[in-house]
Amino acid sequence: MTKSKIVIVGAGFGGIAAAKRLAGCGAEVTLIDRRNYHLFQPLLYQVATADLSPADVAWPIRSLFTNDRNIAVALAEVTGVDRSSREVITGDRRYPYDFLILASGSSNFYFGHPEWEAHAPGLKRIIDATEIRKRILLAFERAELEEDAAERRRLLNFAVVGGGPTGVEMAGAIAELARVALARDFRRIDPKAARIVLVEASDRLLAGFAPELADYARRCLEKLGVEIALGQPVRAVEPSGVRIGETWLPTATVIWAAGVKVDGPGAWLGVETDRGGRLSVGPDLSLPGHSEIFVIGDAAKVVWEGERLVPGLAPAAKQEGRYVAEVILARLENRKPPLAFRYRHAGNLATIGRSAAIVDFGQWRLKGAPAWWFWGLVHIYFLINTRAATLVLLQWFWAYLTRKKGARLITGSRPLIIGRNAESREETP
Amino acid sequence: MTKSKIVIVGAGFGGIAAAKRLAGCGAEVTLIDRRNYHLFQPLLYQVATADLSPADVAWPIRSLFTNDRNIAVALAEVTGVDRSSREVITGDRRYPYDFLILASGSSNFYFGHPEWEAHAPGLKRIIDATEIRKRILLAFERAELEEDAAERRRLLNFAVVGGGPTGVEMAGAIAELARVALARDFRRIDPKAARIVLVEASDRLLAGFAPELADYARRCLEKLGVEIALGQPVRAVEPSGVRIGETWLPTATVIWAAGVKVDGPGAWLGVETDRGGRLSVGPDLSLPGHSEIFVIGDAAKVVWEGERLVPGLAPAAKQEGRYVAEVILARLENRKPPLAFRYRHAGNLATIGRSAAIVDFGQWRLKGAPAWWFWGLVHIYFLINTRAATLVLLQWFWAYLTRKKGARLITGSRPLIIGRNAESREETP
Repeated sequence: MTKSKIVIVGAGFGGIAAAKRLAGCGAEVTLIDRRNYHLFQPLLYQVATADLSPADVAWPIRSLFTNDRNIAVALAEVTGVDRSSREVITGDRRYPYDFLILASGSSNFYFGHPEWEAHAPGLKRIIDATEIRKRILLAFERAELEEDAAERRRLLNFAVVGGGPTGVEMAGAIAELARVALARDFRRIDPKAARIVLVEASDRLLAGFAPELADYARRCLEKLGVEIALGQPVRAVEPSGVRIGETWLPTATVIWAAGVKVDGPGAWLGVETDRGGRLSVGPDLSLPGHSEIFVIGDAAKVVWEGERLVPGLAPAAKQEGRYVAEVILARLENRKPPLAFRYRHAGNLATIGRSAAIVDFGQWRLKGAPAWWFWGLVHIYFLINTRAATLVLLQWFWAYLTRKKGARLITGSRPLIIGRNAESREETP
Repeated sequence: MTKSKIVIVGAGFGGIAAAKRLAGCGAEVTLIDRRNYHLFQPLLYQVATADLSPADVAWPIRSLFTNDRNIAVALAEVTGVDRSSREVITGDRRYPYDFLILASGSSNFYFGHPEWEAHAPGLKRIIDATEIRKRILLAFERAELEEDAAERRRLLNFAVVGGGPTGVEMAGAIAELARVALARDFRRIDPKAARIVLVEASDRLLAGFAPELADYARRCLEKLGVEIALGQPVRAVEPSGVRIGETWLPTATVIWAAGVKVDGPGAWLGVETDRGGRLSVGPDLSLPGHSEIFVIGDAAKVVWEGERLVPGLAPAAKQEGRYVAEVILARLENRKPPLAFRYRHAGNLATIGRSAAIVDFGQWRLKGAPAWWFWGLVHIYFLINTRAATLVLLQWFWAYLTRKKGARLITGSRPLIIGRNAESREETP
């Protein structure tokens, strides 16, 4: 008898959790991702703000499965799924499957304006984070050399679009970069004069948190000097600035933390999706009519507590990954399948700068320094690789003591030509 | 009285040493570099072989001078020097100087074949190191998915061109990556089957070392499985392989560690250079006929012990940087200038893999494990930034214990499309 074949597409939190649960089982598992690393996305913004290095928040996928001999990793980009022959297609190669888990995640959504992306990178991949880091640092470098006062002010304006946890964390971290780490490193400009504007279309920050905690976060951000523009959608993003409601903010640096969409699975399978690209799934997270295909993580539309959807958080993806692995194992071993998937919401966390954070566990809420320490411990705990956890801890501790930022490197493949007329070359990659 | 203006071009070892010596003096110093970081080049190969992260071997130039208020840093690319008006030109900007120190370093030299560069990156910039890291790791990833046996063998061939310390260190590190760190992470290929070929045109490795130490290094490399091709110049570098003497080695990964040339100063000043682009200088390292212009580091042709030239090593550049700063200070303060520059050669160091190294201090020679520990201590000592030293130490120690490599990330801006026919797209950026 040949072994059953399980293909997992995507090595994010969901795909890794599923593969880990299937390690050592009788089936042959192939984990396909277009990158060679698993990314610890909750800390990616710290790469963008020069606190951490890419290797601190990402690990080679292979190294997570060195000793799991039934798990093979393939670095390849999925281009389609042949449902009738049961094969995943990657360019000119096909991976047959008996069970398929689609865990391919999401990308940034620009509300129907894909042309904004070039001027407003989001925070999904390592290359996004290093690009944002480069833009932020270059803005200060250019301002230092700029003779024109208006242009200098424009270079020192920073816009963060989106008032969820990522936007709040980015805005706080940029404010600290400008006001603390860079404060004494320039001779002609004062980095403390930088304006950081956090833009949110709805009328409050951090919709997932209790109003009292969101309010506390707003006050912390304002204390750091972040300006908050609520109830104002972004209407235009251009190389020279951003239109917020009716107001024009001249800026060279816009960071997108406003929305995500799902790209792959709907097109690969040729099935209908909702507006965000998500697929409807049955109670066991399988595709209706295809009990051998499962969709998890950001790509799956899973209802929770009546009308809400399961949020796009790491714990949700992990729970779904482990659950579908259990369903598959039960079928392989002719056991009774587990009951319908039920999401257990642990809580929401967000940090604002160096020593404030908010923790919302429903009944149990924390803010301020205790929340910050809790936030740090939780993240260290979930950094699955011991080496990375040690290094991240050490870098945080060092940064805490010295208030320096170690990873302030402007890297990239394009040559760096700085001058008053070089802007357009730099801004449109 | 207006303050004297000193411009330093290049923030390598020479430029930084000069600026540090001039910190706190009465002159206004501007340090110009086209990158925002100072690179600890002796450890750059460890970024290429996934042992360290870029931020471990590079520091923001500004952060080195936070408290030196008379030192300004400009991120700009020098395009010329106007000797008559005494100005350094960067695009549309001019920096007037009373004293000028040119410390702009060198780039890779391909023996008159600049077209080889695309297929054989060298090790000069961070982007070079991450590109080499990407190519090495991608070669293994592609081999894992490759059906054709000959192509699979080609992907597992690696050529390192140049038998100096950089080439020896690269070859040893790739051999360890393949034989130790990656050994159990693949399912279809055996990374231990990789062939690493070190090519040297002359008849021995490590010309700067005593023959007995070079011989020891050769034996260490051979024990690690590195093949050594001596007395054979590289005649062609192509996307599909490299011609070594009369032999064709099919390979997808060629690393260049063979030669350097100096690009900027000769053209900027409009003066004659030797074949390598180096400028002749007087006994005080000033340009003949221009006592206000100094040339140091790789760009300067400084004779030492009769006919030999001062080598392109960090200690030499530092000594020269400190020396010209002393000459300038003496002139500013109307003191007696120091005697002619005299290079003090400390010694040569090279490491071969995890626990072997060679140390040649003339009278005093070391090899094996004691030399390796000495090598490690010396490098830690010279990592000028405490934070980086701590992190590098910790990562080395961790790697030593676990034999894992943490920085095995394939990053880059081009999308990763892997397939049998995608090769050409990847190989010609």
